[in-house]
Amino acid sequence: MSLLVVGTVAFDAIETPFGKTDKILGGAATYISLAASYFTKKMNLVSVVGDDFPQEHIDMLNKHHVDTTGLQVIKGEKTFFWAGKYHNDMNSRDTITTELNVLANFNPIVPEAYQDCDFLMLGNLMPQVQQKVIAQLKKRPKLIVLDTMNFWMDIAMPELLEALKQIDVLTINDSEARQLSGEYSLVKAAQKILDMGPKYLIIKKGEHGALLFNKEQVFFAPALPLEDVFDPTGAGDSFAGGFIGYLAETEDISFENMKRAIIFGSATASFCVEKFGTENLVGLTQEQVDSRVQEFVDLVQFDIALV
Amino acid sequence: MSLLVVGTVAFDAIETPFGKTDKILGGAATYISLAASYFTKKMNLVSVVGDDFPQEHIDMLNKHHVDTTGLQVIKGEKTFFWAGKYHNDMNSRDTITTELNVLANFNPIVPEAYQDCDFLMLGNLMPQVQQKVIAQLKKRPKLIVLDTMNFWMDIAMPELLEALKQIDVLTINDSEARQLSGEYSLVKAAQKILDMGPKYLIIKKGEHGALLFNKEQVFFAPALPLEDVFDPTGAGDSFAGGFIGYLAETEDISFENMKRAIIFGSATASFCVEKFGTENLVGLTQEQVDSRVQEFVDLVQFDIALV
Repeated sequence: MSLLVVGTVAFDAIETPFGKTDKILGGAATYISLAASYFTKKMNLVSVVGDDFPQEHIDMLNKHHVDTTGLQVIKGEKTFFWAGKYHNDMNSRDTITTELNVLANFNPIVPEAYQDCDFLMLGNLMPQVQQKVIAQLKKRPKLIVLDTMNFWMDIAMPELLEALKQIDVLTINDSEARQLSGEYSLVKAAQKILDMGPKYLIIKKGEHGALLFNKEQVFFAPALPLEDVFDPTGAGDSFAGGFIGYLAETEDISFENMKRAIIFGSATASFCVEKFGTENLVGLTQEQVDSRVQEFVDLVQFDIALV
Repeated sequence: MSLLVVGTVAFDAIETPFGKTDKILGGAATYISLAASYFTKKMNLVSVVGDDFPQEHIDMLNKHHVDTTGLQVIKGEKTFFWAGKYHNDMNSRDTITTELNVLANFNPIVPEAYQDCDFLMLGNLMPQVQQKVIAQLKKRPKLIVLDTMNFWMDIAMPELLEALKQIDVLTINDSEARQLSGEYSLVKAAQKILDMGPKYLIIKKGEHGALLFNKEQVFFAPALPLEDVFDPTGAGDSFAGGFIGYLAETEDISFENMKRAIIFGSATASFCVEKFGTENLVGLTQEQVDSRVQEFVDLVQFDIALV
């Protein structure tokens, strides 16, 4: 079934303790699509760039099974640009530059050909824009996943709360879960957030893994312990992409299958952070993905027989 | 087979955001022994207290299958006392008071009846004292586990490095692993530390779980997401106690069995932090322990069939 990905396509300039990039390809929808492409072969993209966006990036996305009919190219304007610098622990970063450019007036338009969408992934964007996409779909998708961040909780909480009522899965990080719920305990935070609308909540804890909650169950997946993390940019989006890509391909939205989807998402994210930007998400082989997933199995599986 | 536990038996005064205690029973060897008592029924204790230490605590330890022949009671002196206050995030704390008292001149003596020891757990203590215990054992135990902390890395690194050559399993937390190895990546830190002597390394990450390394393999166990953590004191020692208690009872020191032991250790630690001090480690039932272990199974087990 088809997957619709909505989110930013951008230029990033990244500095980490391991090095520094010029303007490179970035954006939530880029990471999500590339990650999902290892699991599903039919993806549609709704996003916006300026006419400074190189055709080679669009070709690369097309090669990864991404239909770019819904990618608006705005003449005479520039692509969204973000520059950031990570601290030594790689867990925190400073934003150096944010140039919204085309994003400032982004009006998402879902092409008619995308109306058969069964799985919708709303990458981090202004909640009003995320809602506009849902409103344009004539048939409600089987599953709507929404990613957001603390910034929208600070400046657009009512709109975010409205969006939460319309979705199935929310993905946020641990400090955002605490901010959204007002609870320090993630278990309590999850229960409060599930009362706001989503049936499932994924709390991303970066190098400490991810938690999946519904009202009755909880599942935990670790992040893979890596020798080196070069660049955390896009880790959360790659995770979300692997997650929804796997669900879209298997068409099974049970809790059991979401557990698997989280492992595939974690595996994809572990590739992402090993190189700068999207570099390591381009051209992975099925063998590489399978072998990485096997590392997760080996990492956490144990055998205890309780009487 | 018999388990020998060496470490502090102490009084603690604890303040957390949830409350405050008077002087209560504490000490690494206390937590270790109580935790291990849910898995093995033959434990010997080497430690020291003053004559202010109440008989009721000794009786309670005896009830939990702890032989206290090796517990020295020093006349006219006072028991080791520690007071600390946890910050709001419960991950960091300030030491308010440390009164070494009997610990200042602790000379551990292993009673003749303890010489059959097959499993030795050296709780956090001055490395020279830990080594004195190993030196007294006529037959090398099947497994020696040593816990230590940053304090000894600061003031007794040569002695600690000497001790590491004589043991099988080292348990430390993530920041201590970084300090000991000089590596930020825990994967790299582990390989360096395993070159220092131990065959196995357990890195405790508190609420973020624990990692078990040997030179070829790695295993990760999460901490159980809890509604409330009342008091983290003793969590690491309860973890170590459950770990070595399970190994001593099963007499199997394979990597596969250590994975199980880590789950049992994590389960025991999850009980510990739900109440103040040792309160929740006294009088647990087998059903409570089994049900908690089942929660770990449910939390992390997934089913992915790779071709």
